[in-house]
Amino acid sequence: MNRAPSIGEYLIQRLQAHGVRHVFGIPGDYVLGFYDQLQKSPIQTVVTCDEQGAGFAADGYARVNGLGVVCVTYCVGGLKVVNPIAGAFAEKSPVVVISGAPGLYEREKNPLLHHKVRDFNTQLRVFEQITVASAALEDPDTAFAEIDRVLHTAVRYKRPVYLELPRDMATLPGRPDHRIRDLHEASDPHALAEALNEATMLLNRARRPVILADVELHRFGMQDDLIKIVEKTGIPVAATILGKSVVAEQHPQYLGVYEGAMGRDDVREYVESSDCVLLLGAFMTDINLGVFTAKLDPAKSISATSERLAIRYHTFENVRFQDFVRGLLSSDLRRHEPAPHPHPPQPAEFQPGRGGEKVTITRLFERVNRFLDDGNIVVADVGNALFGASDLLIRHRTEFLGPAYYASMGFAVPAALGAQMARPDLRPVVLVGDGAFQMTGMEISTIVRAGLNPVIIVLNNFGYGTERHIHDGPFNDVLHWNYHKLPEFLGRGRGFLVETEEQLDAALDDAAKHTESYCLLDVHLAPMDKSAALGRLAERLAERLGRKR
Amino acid sequence: MNRAPSIGEYLIQRLQAHGVRHVFGIPGDYVLGFYDQLQKSPIQTVVTCDEQGAGFAADGYARVNGLGVVCVTYCVGGLKVVNPIAGAFAEKSPVVVISGAPGLYEREKNPLLHHKVRDFNTQLRVFEQITVASAALEDPDTAFAEIDRVLHTAVRYKRPVYLELPRDMATLPGRPDHRIRDLHEASDPHALAEALNEATMLLNRARRPVILADVELHRFGMQDDLIKIVEKTGIPVAATILGKSVVAEQHPQYLGVYEGAMGRDDVREYVESSDCVLLLGAFMTDINLGVFTAKLDPAKSISATSERLAIRYHTFENVRFQDFVRGLLSSDLRRHEPAPHPHPPQPAEFQPGRGGEKVTITRLFERVNRFLDDGNIVVADVGNALFGASDLLIRHRTEFLGPAYYASMGFAVPAALGAQMARPDLRPVVLVGDGAFQMTGMEISTIVRAGLNPVIIVLNNFGYGTERHIHDGPFNDVLHWNYHKLPEFLGRGRGFLVETEEQLDAALDDAAKHTESYCLLDVHLAPMDKSAALGRLAERLAERLGRKR
Repeated sequence: MNRAPSIGEYLIQRLQAHGVRHVFGIPGDYVLGFYDQLQKSPIQTVVTCDEQGAGFAADGYARVNGLGVVCVTYCVGGLKVVNPIAGAFAEKSPVVVISGAPGLYEREKNPLLHHKVRDFNTQLRVFEQITVASAALEDPDTAFAEIDRVLHTAVRYKRPVYLELPRDMATLPGRPDHRIRDLHEASDPHALAEALNEATMLLNRARRPVILADVELHRFGMQDDLIKIVEKTGIPVAATILGKSVVAEQHPQYLGVYEGAMGRDDVREYVESSDCVLLLGAFMTDINLGVFTAKLDPAKSISATSERLAIRYHTFENVRFQDFVRGLLSSDLRRHEPAPHPHPPQPAEFQPGRGGEKVTITRLFERVNRFLDDGNIVVADVGNALFGASDLLIRHRTEFLGPAYYASMGFAVPAALGAQMARPDLRPVVLVGDGAFQMTGMEISTIVRAGLNPVIIVLNNFGYGTERHIHDGPFNDVLHWNYHKLPEFLGRGRGFLVETEEQLDAALDDAAKHTESYCLLDVHLAPMDKSAALGRLAERLAERLGRKR
Repeated sequence: MNRAPSIGEYLIQRLQAHGVRHVFGIPGDYVLGFYDQLQKSPIQTVVTCDEQGAGFAADGYARVNGLGVVCVTYCVGGLKVVNPIAGAFAEKSPVVVISGAPGLYEREKNPLLHHKVRDFNTQLRVFEQITVASAALEDPDTAFAEIDRVLHTAVRYKRPVYLELPRDMATLPGRPDHRIRDLHEASDPHALAEALNEATMLLNRARRPVILADVELHRFGMQDDLIKIVEKTGIPVAATILGKSVVAEQHPQYLGVYEGAMGRDDVREYVESSDCVLLLGAFMTDINLGVFTAKLDPAKSISATSERLAIRYHTFENVRFQDFVRGLLSSDLRRHEPAPHPHPPQPAEFQPGRGGEKVTITRLFERVNRFLDDGNIVVADVGNALFGASDLLIRHRTEFLGPAYYASMGFAVPAALGAQMARPDLRPVVLVGDGAFQMTGMEISTIVRAGLNPVIIVLNNFGYGTERHIHDGPFNDVLHWNYHKLPEFLGRGRGFLVETEEQLDAALDDAAKHTESYCLLDVHLAPMDKSAALGRLAERLAERLGRKR
């Protein structure tokens, strides 16, 4: 008779089957046994400085790889990743949280074991709020089935899940007769056919249809399907800021980023004057909608996501997102004649001023746009970094990561760690404000340990720039750090102090050549400088605050 | 007719009435309005690098000041403080979490507003798990009463509470006729009298009674009552590690820290052979009990806490902790003749080796013990820092802070920030491992901004030392940082590289003189070096893991 694998071993096997090659986290006594099992497996553990960094790294990894894992100890580790996991929930990133826990044998009489908060289920209840499935693996008879269910849910909904592994369970065998069930869900064929017919008719009848492509096409790996639809029909395509790079931005039918009044006017006008908008995998968030300045008429819209399919004012039940999108591909969509439409501006030549001109945000992004090539992935943090990046030209798909809905500061540096672990062939270009850098930037330490080489650009305006434009006060200032001296502190890397356009130009030239380690550019900016998009956003946010100035 | 204050103003007034002078946090758009109100009030806002640091700082402040406040924005801020607040819950520290939130006016139709996770109550539900009271201030008619109730509960139970303030509520007036209700709770006089009679009888009858003093005496500010009981009765007193410094450690009746087999043998023997142990405010945690090696016979115990009063095997309802302790003071307790008992070792002279001797943990603590005087407060992080510190001689009460139950790494540096904001007359001495420093050590930046001057001693053993003794693996290593170069990175402070006893001696001499800024000692230690207490703890933990070696 076959001996069943232990619960820990089975979990590791299933993670591998889902394509996981790296796990981010920090060990602690309740999870050390499982770390030992990981150590003996082909999966590599990446120990970060703080669990928060591991959470963001697993999120970045999941966005690029399809599934990510953060592995932590009970409460003092797990409760540090609540915010990154909430962000993964909000932005649909499938991260598996694995937490150690006190052994069942030691819980009798409810003792006060270290790391316990209120009772032994406190952490589980917290994660129930921010995951789509969770389980405490407390019974060897059900553990394998629970692992299957929870991992399946993560992949099905592209959202985080939670698994709690008491330390005395990790090495116990599960059921030897366990079989992995196929959890495939099919669309209702009648509903699917009706929806496809109607969508096809509306698109064929339209004079000037347009596609708005968003994040779920990323998450479900359907970028190729999108391109096929675009090329089959001749319909032009725009992206949201959250979905940016879902289509390669040099594609001749690509319009640019649509984000209501926050985005470029020509894209806005083209999309909003269309007589049929096909929204694919699109979240109607305030930021995607330019703080609700977007004007998309539902009477002219077809919107498909993994959660909902709506055509005009009615919805269809039991139609899977993938089936609908692929159904469109094989349906009788006519070809639209190419019409003139906007294109994203091509990166211009960058001629640095020779008179000691200070760097502005506009000029910084012009220069970064020249720097980027096919070997990069752009990871942007919140604020000017993100909004300025919306106009960068991303050459290939899935090469732009930014927390463009949940908007948690501190995302970019650790997410770049995760992204490059998943795709070592891509060199991240990280855009991060000084405020966000002070939160998680020290994860560059983990980047050093892992031998990675991102280019990290600190937009150093000495404070929380976005907030200054909404409501200023001394609370928006942060301490000045000598970011460019980080290599001396960590003993590795290359730092550049950048105040002028010439220094910027030279530093990026150097960074292009120096690929053995990370390069950090400490770019000094005027405190009130801002990208055009941020200016428009801040204005709208201030209006909503009722104190427009 | 009087105009009522706004909800934000009332909250600030009530915090001031509870002795709050500082608030820790990071602003964000949903809480900027309240930050503006704080800015106009006498309360000072302390903006940290990351919200996690603000959470620990508020905890440290609460432990010293009696109440602490962390003020953050919705979800991306609030969910970053879940772990520090869970720690405050576990260790009974009254921290008020104030979070901004989207305005009620903008929640119609449940839009996808930035920072939202699942629905608008996700964050509230998370905090319900880790606080003793919570309220979303969504109704001006009840807001003042809710503020009263929630703050009262924090003070009553010495545990964290949560207040959510939608951004359109902060400036709305509450009820003009609101009156603060007196929420005094009285003991049942009959139960109290019976309990006091029995306790008095048992103590008077005992031949060799002993008092075990723990953390709740700190939290309820009852250190003076303790000393009066000790001096009235002549009974000697020990402290737990969590309660360390609740009694000034030079007191002639002080035995030392009792922690089962982890602590000093003479203290253990004295306490465990006593025929009547009076436990005051004591939590029976695994670490307080030396991983359950403590042998305290309930048949010989009287245990009073804010949650429970037990004498031998029976309990009393409705007897308040304070009433019981003060009742003992006025009861007919006889005086016990002074008997010989153990005393904590006095700090010895420190003669640094002159032959380039490397610093060991034992020698480090010997030297730190010489350094301490009445003007210090010791703040210890998890691991060797905490366990080594248990043998430091703390001269005055409330001068030792450490997460000795919840044991979250990363506590010490930000908690020292909070502690010194509360008590600027005390200079913190921070003991922190390199692993913990990499989590939150950069909050030294906030210490610089606030103009504080702690002495920070990094126990740099290149990894997670405690775990190495439980279960070692490469996952227990961390990157080497040049901690002593932090002053160059931050542009302020004084750093010392310490490898030998002579360097240690000189660096602490220098630090004693250099009081204008923080001083950071980067003390290199052998990876497997350990304090005696940690050695015993790790052995016990490894046993429980079932892989004793």
